[in-house]
Amino acid sequence: MKCLPQEIIARKRDGHTLRREEVDAFVAGVVSGGFKDYQSSALLMAIVLKGMTPEETGWLTEAMMRSGRIVELPEVTRPKVDKHSTGGVGDKVSLILAPLVAACGLCVPMMSGRGLGHTGGTLDKLEAIPGFSTQMDDAAYRKQLLEIHQAMIGQSADIVPADRKLYALRDVTATVESIPLICASILSKKLAEGIDALVLDVKFGQGAFMSTEADGRELAKALVAIGTSMGKPTSALLTRMEQPLGRMIGNALEVIESIDCLRGEGPADLMEVTYALCAEMLLLGGLHTDKAAAMAALKQAIDSGAALAAFRRLVEAQGGDPRVLDDYQRLPHCQQHHDVVPDLDAASYIARLDARAYGQAACLLGAGRASMDAVIDPAVGFELLKKEGDRIEPGEAFVRIHYTNTDQLEAVIERLQNATHFSPKPVAVLPLVVDRIAPEINT
Amino acid sequence: MKCLPQEIIARKRDGHTLRREEVDAFVAGVVSGGFKDYQSSALLMAIVLKGMTPEETGWLTEAMMRSGRIVELPEVTRPKVDKHSTGGVGDKVSLILAPLVAACGLCVPMMSGRGLGHTGGTLDKLEAIPGFSTQMDDAAYRKQLLEIHQAMIGQSADIVPADRKLYALRDVTATVESIPLICASILSKKLAEGIDALVLDVKFGQGAFMSTEADGRELAKALVAIGTSMGKPTSALLTRMEQPLGRMIGNALEVIESIDCLRGEGPADLMEVTYALCAEMLLLGGLHTDKAAAMAALKQAIDSGAALAAFRRLVEAQGGDPRVLDDYQRLPHCQQHHDVVPDLDAASYIARLDARAYGQAACLLGAGRASMDAVIDPAVGFELLKKEGDRIEPGEAFVRIHYTNTDQLEAVIERLQNATHFSPKPVAVLPLVVDRIAPEINT
Repeated sequence: MKCLPQEIIARKRDGHTLRREEVDAFVAGVVSGGFKDYQSSALLMAIVLKGMTPEETGWLTEAMMRSGRIVELPEVTRPKVDKHSTGGVGDKVSLILAPLVAACGLCVPMMSGRGLGHTGGTLDKLEAIPGFSTQMDDAAYRKQLLEIHQAMIGQSADIVPADRKLYALRDVTATVESIPLICASILSKKLAEGIDALVLDVKFGQGAFMSTEADGRELAKALVAIGTSMGKPTSALLTRMEQPLGRMIGNALEVIESIDCLRGEGPADLMEVTYALCAEMLLLGGLHTDKAAAMAALKQAIDSGAALAAFRRLVEAQGGDPRVLDDYQRLPHCQQHHDVVPDLDAASYIARLDARAYGQAACLLGAGRASMDAVIDPAVGFELLKKEGDRIEPGEAFVRIHYTNTDQLEAVIERLQNATHFSPKPVAVLPLVVDRIAPEINT
Repeated sequence: MKCLPQEIIARKRDGHTLRREEVDAFVAGVVSGGFKDYQSSALLMAIVLKGMTPEETGWLTEAMMRSGRIVELPEVTRPKVDKHSTGGVGDKVSLILAPLVAACGLCVPMMSGRGLGHTGGTLDKLEAIPGFSTQMDDAAYRKQLLEIHQAMIGQSADIVPADRKLYALRDVTATVESIPLICASILSKKLAEGIDALVLDVKFGQGAFMSTEADGRELAKALVAIGTSMGKPTSALLTRMEQPLGRMIGNALEVIESIDCLRGEGPADLMEVTYALCAEMLLLGGLHTDKAAAMAALKQAIDSGAALAAFRRLVEAQGGDPRVLDDYQRLPHCQQHHDVVPDLDAASYIARLDARAYGQAACLLGAGRASMDAVIDPAVGFELLKKEGDRIEPGEAFVRIHYTNTDQLEAVIERLQNATHFSPKPVAVLPLVVDRIAPEINT
């Protein structure tokens, strides 16, 4: 290696901008072992504390993207557009969005991850459908994209291996919280998919990774700037994640809610975010030039049944049982429910549902995993009978718990009670989509 | 462990003061493996960039000191005082100082390290004496301290094991440059020797670790504050390290110069620093209450031959050949010398000798090691025929190179020429001892 690891680390420690060859040497060293883990973690900490310029972040993103196989899909003639969310509770948007925009003319080559901590993962949700497989070889993947214009699979180990190593290291060295590192991790993986454009859902709030709107906006701007500088049209929506999205939390329950949405029977908040992201994808993919036309196309795809039919094709193509679309009992489900009734003297309003606490309670119930090797139960979860702003009468329940065993039930109930706040007066609900961040030329 | 490594790292990353239990958990984890190397290096980088309060640094020093065996010497009735230098070129003060203050009534239980890079190490110098051993077991060490009041040995592996691990890690992760980490490394090792008081020689200048007087002063103040807060009288001299100290560089050559000094025939600059440090030791050890009396005692020990006799006893006790004191030809020496004559038209003055470049050239010649596993040649080195301020006539040499093989000779000559600067006018030489740093109560 031309640059010694300790010299590169020292330059970032001293606040210098790394040269492109130094960034390249770092990423190559992570993959080859020329950078030892203890050297990588020292450099990561220096990056967390000293930052990176947009140019450096772009070099890091590109070097990471090139650390493994880059998918190229020249045979796909449709615009290839993907969406990435920074993660929230009850966020099943991908399951609705992919078939919906595929029905509108895009190709969605989506590679996703699994859930960890209080947020769920798209792969876990899809795998609640009996038979659904999220792994396939490259030939089958390309064939599916040509035939049904969508695929939802896990990322194979040969794509962005540098991120795999760095992310594991960041997780145990307190170096996750860094906008340049987050940007490079997200964008290297998405840009290795061979897409033409990317839409980002950057969430903020106590249920999101970024807790404040300002932090979320900063991340969104950085993601859009780096993606755009790498030649891929990129835009982001800044969306609120204070209460869970939609009414269902839990893998099979979220599949049900997604199908309901595709059938035109989804909850307003979930559809608001889904439509906004889908419209952005259609615009970026060049299928429409104004938002009203894009929205009309999306609503038409729902109303006509085209979106639901697209989801049915997706399930069939990936080995799932398509009969679940018509019979939810074919999905894993619990024999036992428990409705939680608050101790209220008078009619009240739901003032706040703490998304993070709901996510953590779902984890405790078995719907999510606290560590990557934990086994999840696809059937369990929560059905939110009331959401923020809803009126609740004395004796009414606000949440239904779908559970398999009673071990953690009391603890889960207590957490949900603590995570739910009531007000004697009506409560105003803030809009979900706060802003759109796009390169200056597009705004 | 009560505190998770990533939580401790995150607290320092965010600029918080660590709690004592967190510092203890870090040091215990370094030794036990509960802190992985990649976690330690992330925390080290956070400490480099966010700093540590004096209190935290004291906790770190104490936890490191307690990470291994602590020598206790209750049987020694003399005041036990040691000296530590932050390292310079031509710095053979320890070899003169230990027998000199032992002859004046102190006990010097000195544990030293080896040289690395452009600075030499006390152990390497002593081992140039045929038969001299710097390793002995605890019983022999204690016996020697009782009998001749001085010992100069290497640190055994069971003393401050945390520093051994951390120093190796800091060296390859660009986390050496940190005053709290330097303080904890130096003081934990010295305080584990079982001393009553400590004198520090903090060098600054282009031949020293700290290049500016301000940085040297900051380090000296921190060392004195932490040492004092741990209950050990500690003071420091701030000394200049721009040109090499004394006239000899190279292990056997420095032994010769040390013996000359003990015989009262040492160069002025070397004796100035040695006397100042020795006087400080006598004061801190309580043998004298004013500097003039301490200086008189030291000069008397040289003039009477008591200091030289003490060195003879040290050499004999540690298995060395005492006949070297009377016959320098019994030390390793080179058959070949080369005198470097500058190209001068007229009588000139030596304006500057670059200590770091001289040290690096000595390394290249084989007198020092570039890496810890390199083998050194005790015979080779430089004899400075001229020092800063000296007049030099055309045709006169400024340095004599003692060399064994000719491989690197040309390169060494070139480096020495580049490292030596001449002036047509007389040059003023700045004083070596710039300041004394002591706890406020003592100043």
